[in-house]
Amino acid sequence: MADVLVAGASGFAGALAARLVDRHPSLTLGPVTSRSHAGTSLLELYPHHRVGAVLEELDLDRHSEVDAAIVAYPHGAAAPVVAGLRERGVRVVDLSADFRLLDRGVYERWYVPHGAPELIGGAAYGLTELNRERIAGAELVANPGCFPTGALLALAPLARAGLIADVVIDAKTGVSGAGRAPTDVTHFVSVAENVKPYKVGSHRHTPEIDQELAALGAPVSVTFVPHLVPVDQGELMSCYVTPAEPVDESRVAALFAEAYAGERFVEVVDAPPGMRDVRETNRCHISVHVDPGNGRVMVFAAIDNLWKGTSSQAIQNLNLMLGLPEDEGLEA
Amino acid sequence: MADVLVAGASGFAGALAARLVDRHPSLTLGPVTSRSHAGTSLLELYPHHRVGAVLEELDLDRHSEVDAAIVAYPHGAAAPVVAGLRERGVRVVDLSADFRLLDRGVYERWYVPHGAPELIGGAAYGLTELNRERIAGAELVANPGCFPTGALLALAPLARAGLIADVVIDAKTGVSGAGRAPTDVTHFVSVAENVKPYKVGSHRHTPEIDQELAALGAPVSVTFVPHLVPVDQGELMSCYVTPAEPVDESRVAALFAEAYAGERFVEVVDAPPGMRDVRETNRCHISVHVDPGNGRVMVFAAIDNLWKGTSSQAIQNLNLMLGLPEDEGLEA
Amino acid sequence: MADVLVAGASGFAGALAARLVDRHPSLTLGPVTSRSHAGTSLLELYPHHRVGAVLEELDLDRHSEVDAAIVAYPHGAAAPVVAGLRERGVRVVDLSADFRLLDRGVYERWYVPHGAPELIGGAAYGLTELNRERIAGAELVANPGCFPTGALLALAPLARAGLIADVVIDAKTGVSGAGRAPTDVTHFVSVAENVKPYKVGSHRHTPEIDQELAALGAPVSVTFVPHLVPVDQGELMSCYVTPAEPVDESRVAALFAEAYAGERFVEVVDAPPGMRDVRETNRCHISVHVDPGNGRVMVFAAIDNLWKGTSSQAIQNLNLMLGLPEDEGLEA
Amino acid sequence: MADVLVAGASGFAGALAARLVDRHPSLTLGPVTSRSHAGTSLLELYPHHRVGAVLEELDLDRHSEVDAAIVAYPHGAAAPVVAGLRERGVRVVDLSADFRLLDRGVYERWYVPHGAPELIGGAAYGLTELNRERIAGAELVANPGCFPTGALLALAPLARAGLIADVVIDAKTGVSGAGRAPTDVTHFVSVAENVKPYKVGSHRHTPEIDQELAALGAPVSVTFVPHLVPVDQGELMSCYVTPAEPVDESRVAALFAEAYAGERFVEVVDAPPGMRDVRETNRCHISVHVDPGNGRVMVFAAIDNLWKGTSSQAIQNLNLMLGLPEDEGLEA
Repeated sequence: MADVLVAGASGFAGALAARLVDRHPSLTLGPVTSRSHAGTSLLELYPHHRVGAVLEELDLDRHSEVDAAIVAYPHGAAAPVVAGLRERGVRVVDLSADFRLLDRGVYERWYVPHGAPELIGGAAYGLTELNRERIAGAELVANPGCFPTGALLALAPLARAGLIADVVIDAKTGVSGAGRAPTDVTHFVSVAENVKPYKVGSHRHTPEIDQELAALGAPVSVTFVPHLVPVDQGELMSCYVTPAEPVDESRVAALFAEAYAGERFVEVVDAPPGMRDVRETNRCHISVHVDPGNGRVMVFAAIDNLWKGTSSQAIQNLNLMLGLPEDEGLEA
Repeated sequence: MADVLVAGASGFAGALAARLVDRHPSLTLGPVTSRSHAGTSLLELYPHHRVGAVLEELDLDRHSEVDAAIVAYPHGAAAPVVAGLRERGVRVVDLSADFRLLDRGVYERWYVPHGAPELIGGAAYGLTELNRERIAGAELVANPGCFPTGALLALAPLARAGLIADVVIDAKTGVSGAGRAPTDVTHFVSVAENVKPYKVGSHRHTPEIDQELAALGAPVSVTFVPHLVPVDQGELMSCYVTPAEPVDESRVAALFAEAYAGERFVEVVDAPPGMRDVRETNRCHISVHVDPGNGRVMVFAAIDNLWKGTSSQAIQNLNLMLGLPEDEGLEA
Repeated sequence: MADVLVAGASGFAGALAARLVDRHPSLTLGPVTSRSHAGTSLLELYPHHRVGAVLEELDLDRHSEVDAAIVAYPHGAAAPVVAGLRERGVRVVDLSADFRLLDRGVYERWYVPHGAPELIGGAAYGLTELNRERIAGAELVANPGCFPTGALLALAPLARAGLIADVVIDAKTGVSGAGRAPTDVTHFVSVAENVKPYKVGSHRHTPEIDQELAALGAPVSVTFVPHLVPVDQGELMSCYVTPAEPVDESRVAALFAEAYAGERFVEVVDAPPGMRDVRETNRCHISVHVDPGNGRVMVFAAIDNLWKGTSSQAIQNLNLMLGLPEDEGLEA
Repeated sequence: MADVLVAGASGFAGALAARLVDRHPSLTLGPVTSRSHAGTSLLELYPHHRVGAVLEELDLDRHSEVDAAIVAYPHGAAAPVVAGLRERGVRVVDLSADFRLLDRGVYERWYVPHGAPELIGGAAYGLTELNRERIAGAELVANPGCFPTGALLALAPLARAGLIADVVIDAKTGVSGAGRAPTDVTHFVSVAENVKPYKVGSHRHTPEIDQELAALGAPVSVTFVPHLVPVDQGELMSCYVTPAEPVDESRVAALFAEAYAGERFVEVVDAPPGMRDVRETNRCHISVHVDPGNGRVMVFAAIDNLWKGTSSQAIQNLNLMLGLPEDEGLEA
């Protein structure tokens, strides 16, 4: 049994990570920490998670006697905590953006001054299906953003085949993606009976998607626009690709079938997937189509933003890092 | 006071049209008809509309003693009814697709054999802001589809300026767009906590958008994908345009400002609009942006699919046809 | 034209009041004030209200040159503002609880020390249908709470007939009732897929209902429990009355029919009403039933908590105070 | 491993039962049948359940070679199927009302002529926590209605203590309780932004609650009113009890603590429970309060109508009938 610290467990992502660790057959939930809610039981904040642990202040020295840690801190705040854990030899899955971008300049342009620049480039990018081998040997995994997770699973087969000349990604996300802090944006009355684009042309997941698409063979500058929808959990990525050469539906279908043939959590489906199909699972459902009128390739990917988009993918990565079966603790 | 027949008033669109006529200072609600609900009061079907009229079977001879008619029949069924009303000299706003497409072959490929081919081409296309003069003199207006309404308002300024090389339209629509008939698709449990694309690459509004964009100067084949969202009324069109030449944000902003400067119901806004901003109004809110990473032009348009997308635009058109102020009866 | 100040217009209730004044044929919107959002346009906070006025800090001396004021301050903060306006001769409809309770001790037990005790008892209780004459002559009206509005309209005919021996009131309310401040309780993720009782046995509207029921002839101590439901606007009151003597359905039906026979905004309906039937209206729909198994009388009343429950009732009262037709500005 | 037939698996309840059997460590999913959808895969109807079995027509002779069956047929249609299975020696958990009521006259007054009257009284009433011993030895279990499940768990401790003089039960239920058939009532547009009472004074679960309360020691005639809320799964029972003698909160708290002390799936909580706390679980959360104003006892119980209210309780009962641990297969 491996002991796992969850740092930053009062937010949606950390709390779900704590629950998944708590139910995991080969993991034990170690300390759960929170800067804002020390002393509070997780049961009080999230009754439905059924985790009785009490949140405490993070104390790196005392809390580093674990086998691994999931860090669910905000961007910028995560880096020094991750660095501290790594110095003490703890394996880390970091849910923040702090170690995803390989270029410090790009990171600091989109986020904040970096808190542990010496670790940049030292993390494996944790999109499990696309980077399995590096993750298995890694001591630090940068868990992807929820949007990059869906977008890259949707686009990887086309990127690897050199078929992406240009791409528009129109994302729809549930409100939990905005985090636990109550704001005007997350107020029920703002969200109900509404759909609204936000951070048009300026969402921080854009450079992450660009970086990883380039690594897969598609050095493009994507257009990415998220929309907030009245759903609590769920994410649908609608990807519109101008192909580098004409393709027909059977060719793209074959590419996707082959790419995800052995995957436990990615399923290529015929009809366009809905968010609901994968709610509260680590699964990604993908359909691919060619527009008969103009040859554009359309890929739709549905995930749960808190599960495969964040916390259950962290467990999937942790399983690999610890030599456990990749799907352990991830299927009801 | 002009007397107005509403044929097909048991559906969402017809019932709302009846309500708007009923409250209109210069219109009188004449017969309201329904094949399926003859004998039922509209008050029973739609208590919130507060219209007490009782639905009856349509009788063309008896019911043609009106000044105008709004026909809210399904595609295919509308054409003969419209033809019958026109023969009897009644001005008609037709909410179906039957007279929108100018090419009979295209119509019959996407819909059904046409029921009144002699009238094809004889209708004014009822997107008020783009076709005001023809509508004012018309005796038959083909009211646009809800998606073409939002898409064309979003794209017209770019189309007229010759700036559209290519375009992807990602639409989000409330459930009322699927009509009143209860189906697996409109069941609350199917829609809640879900977002799902449908009719991918095959929605019937595609040829309508193509036809009208061509008329505006942009002969493209659009990619158009609607998504069902858990909202009762509302529509958001997200349009991604590859410009024919590089443009900057100030140029496109000026194009839109100019195009809609005098419009009562179209407002160009700075922040991306939400469905909720225009709920239960005849308004369309539009924002336009240029992606700093790749120069793509992004236009977002929000309307209420049942109001500006259907029934209140029908009233706007009727006002023009009858020589009334265009906005009469359309503002609370 | 009467000039109307709206003090506290950045909240849901005040903003809606400002919109209703702005559209009213015989009222002019005077200053709109806000402590928290001075300098902001209402258009920015509430685009769908379409009111362009800019919020400013309240300045009693400068802002008292109006014919009337609607005060939408929190409980406790309202009293001194109301007192200041009254001193300057301004007619006031106060939306807070500060002048609803006639017994200062009761007020201070449930709320806070009273800020203008000299005015207690000087206000007319603003449940229009039940207190029309006093309101018409009043210079200060205490607008009822949203729950008392629905409960008292549901129970008044039984109370006046001496038929209430005991009553349980189970209320369901939309989230706008909790106000504009974003909190854990109003976060979309807390509300979606949830129904939850709150303030069980301790909601501040309880003494208000008790006081007014006693005035109507039913000196009971009610059990009142509100439940938060995933709806933005709307309120349903389910009232379960143990009758003082056996009654049958025809007798109670006659009582309600008679009580509300001439009412423009209260409608006695046969089938149980839904919130949606009265959304965004000043209306109250009521149905009354007798349980065949045990003789209990059940009354269901639906209102919109922000409209008849708050802001549109304020306009209805203002109309009476100013000698205008009671329904002016209240029907689309 | 016990082999389990699920008859009527295309509906919400049967499909969930099939999923729970499929994931159960000691059960094997045998045939899954459907009259309306034979030939369809469950995967197509319910992608999120992840059960690949194909529905077939029920063939009693062929399908009786199982250890047990869960029958999810409509009321009336269930009885003959259950009788056929019992004749062939198959243990049955019946989800319909057909064997819940002990008095044939009462059954036939509220439902239809009974299809297997010889079995009336031969079934154990399957509210597990209240009837554990009889269920463990039973060959036929009548699974309770979803409303009786919540109501009886909420009221049993008071009924057994002789404390119920009178009771009002105000229920709120998610739309899945209305079943899979699309109707005007389950249309998204009917449900969104709405709350509505239905079957006021005439819901069929009323005699079931009365019968079981009497068996527990409280021979009362309850007032029971369900309300439809915009939630897909979930049920909240608000119970208002006039106590037979004055009680204080500590006494009722002790009664509930004692009654449910050893229970795995029933939890007595301090704050009023929300539906969301128990979503997709076999759990029931209960809080109990005394109204300080009038001494009324208020009990709130939250369950998931499809889980503890129907299908997971069926598994809980099946576990007992087969000598398995009661909670097997019921916790993630």
